[in-house]
Amino acid sequence: MTDFITMAHGNGGAAMQKLIREYFFDAFNNPILAQGEDQARIPLNELTKCGQKLAFSTDSFVIDPIFFPGGNIGKLAVCGTMNDIAVGGAVPKYLSCGFILEEGLPLSELKTIIQAMAETCQKAGVQVVTGDTKVVQKGAVDKIFINTSGIGVIPDNLDWGAHRIEAGDQIIISGTIGDHGATILNLRENLGIRTALQSDCAVLTPLIDLLRPIDGIKAVRDATRGGVNAVLHEYAQARDLGMRIEEATLPIRSEVRGICEILGLEALNFANEGKLVIIAKAEKTAEILTALHSHQLGKNAALIGEVTEDKKVRLAGIFGQSRLLDLPTNEPLPRIC
Amino acid sequence: MTDFITMAHGNGGAAMQKLIREYFFDAFNNPILAQGEDQARIPLNELTKCGQKLAFSTDSFVIDPIFFPGGNIGKLAVCGTMNDIAVGGAVPKYLSCGFILEEGLPLSELKTIIQAMAETCQKAGVQVVTGDTKVVQKGAVDKIFINTSGIGVIPDNLDWGAHRIEAGDQIIISGTIGDHGATILNLRENLGIRTALQSDCAVLTPLIDLLRPIDGIKAVRDATRGGVNAVLHEYAQARDLGMRIEEATLPIRSEVRGICEILGLEALNFANEGKLVIIAKAEKTAEILTALHSHQLGKNAALIGEVTEDKKVRLAGIFGQSRLLDLPTNEPLPRIC
Repeated sequence: MTDFITMAHGNGGAAMQKLIREYFFDAFNNPILAQGEDQARIPLNELTKCGQKLAFSTDSFVIDPIFFPGGNIGKLAVCGTMNDIAVGGAVPKYLSCGFILEEGLPLSELKTIIQAMAETCQKAGVQVVTGDTKVVQKGAVDKIFINTSGIGVIPDNLDWGAHRIEAGDQIIISGTIGDHGATILNLRENLGIRTALQSDCAVLTPLIDLLRPIDGIKAVRDATRGGVNAVLHEYAQARDLGMRIEEATLPIRSEVRGICEILGLEALNFANEGKLVIIAKAEKTAEILTALHSHQLGKNAALIGEVTEDKKVRLAGIFGQSRLLDLPTNEPLPRIC
Repeated sequence: MTDFITMAHGNGGAAMQKLIREYFFDAFNNPILAQGEDQARIPLNELTKCGQKLAFSTDSFVIDPIFFPGGNIGKLAVCGTMNDIAVGGAVPKYLSCGFILEEGLPLSELKTIIQAMAETCQKAGVQVVTGDTKVVQKGAVDKIFINTSGIGVIPDNLDWGAHRIEAGDQIIISGTIGDHGATILNLRENLGIRTALQSDCAVLTPLIDLLRPIDGIKAVRDATRGGVNAVLHEYAQARDLGMRIEEATLPIRSEVRGICEILGLEALNFANEGKLVIIAKAEKTAEILTALHSHQLGKNAALIGEVTEDKKVRLAGIFGQSRLLDLPTNEPLPRIC
């Protein structure tokens, strides 16, 4: 085997079978994947009880650069889809992986990426049970794109979603805002800011496990591309309501604040890869914050605002003035995830 | 909205929400997708009975060119994953779609592709219930790549798979060999062969529905990338057995034969996108062929060989001579699917 991906690794023939066996099967080793059929076969009685619901989600990852402080495209691909499943209250169980590889990609880089995926899966108790690999000629894709799709099980009687949001509900963020976006921006735009800042890329299942038993949680999302602002707009639009955020309460690292000030950008628009936006009944906020603070991933959780009747998303400043938070119309940071 | 994909269509903001509503939600319209959450929520009791198995599969589509006689990348993306699910005997139910779009892609082309997906899904009774869209800058991807992942249900007591193959079993192909590969090759390499030949890209669920009740079917695969030859090798390897194919019995269109002769290529290595390789007990072949012949998609089905003890994949010629069919080591035709 050469040290680089060649077109032969994508032709359905001998080189491809070797790549799949030695790289993917080895790393993602589990009995369902090992069946070696074109589809994973998942026994339903091992998965769930009748009456429950399946959560099913997909995400493609095209981040540039593929390695960054705090993770790489592989870790991100596992966290991203697992989090999309978990925010529905579901327990993530199985993942698929679709790789699109550029001819010439060093196999050592592919190995590092797969290893990060395998480790992240293992820690989270999730299995990669089916996959696909395509190789395209140099220039037809930038290094490596990964799609992951995932299946989870939503416990009985749990109903988290935008449809339950009402005016007066409180808005909680599970930690500091904008770490992932600021890290990638600093790296890619050569801002030259020396910092220990890293992506917050993480599997959020432990926080979801803490939240699931608490009655009064209305809706949960992870604030990825588009940031906290995009989540607030989606919620506001879905319910024809408004959102009011208190600037003074926002947990933002000083490095992120610095990058925002230099570039005139808004941390609320920056992508996060390990932060939940939680909408809950007002009387439950203390209980939710206590639960979040008990875990490393939620130690900076904060109450940041409330749902209003006025159909606008507003940021209230420290001196009481408030301004509208519009959705950015241009792409502030392409290929952030 | 401009007539082309812009980076703003991928930023999680207003342009992206508009694209998703007006293009995707409109075309794939169904109540699960319309929930508008980050994950589809599929009621299990509508899907299946306890004790059954879920089939779960994924495929990324990177075909070049994206439009071809007989289909386009969208139709192919639906057929490909549905077929991967169906060949396990499963009834395909739900699909996810992940789009990676190049900045500058004409929206009219995207619309045509989505329309083909929606029509193919509708005919097949399958729903797209969750999705993701990424836009990358010009040059970072070639026009459009699509990932689809799918879920189906395997009926009780059905167990098709390589593990059941034995020496003496018969090998059946559901129709002509190599149509998809030859079509793309003719188109892309400017062979200039004028022909009515088109891709066989099709949803194979109707054939699977005919096969499911027949006892004695051991294993079924659709012969895509790598062709019939790759399937035979995978089966031979999985069971440490051999495969003997009779050249005279192979259903191959004269146009495909012509392209093979001009280029010195083997139709058995060409990709198909609507053909099944079926391994079955010898005494059941007549019943299987009758069932296949009753449907338009199976009218050219033929018995083409048998499983042997000798651990080789062989092609027996018209005059009785036989030669080994090796797996191609180089990529004969990149980006065929």
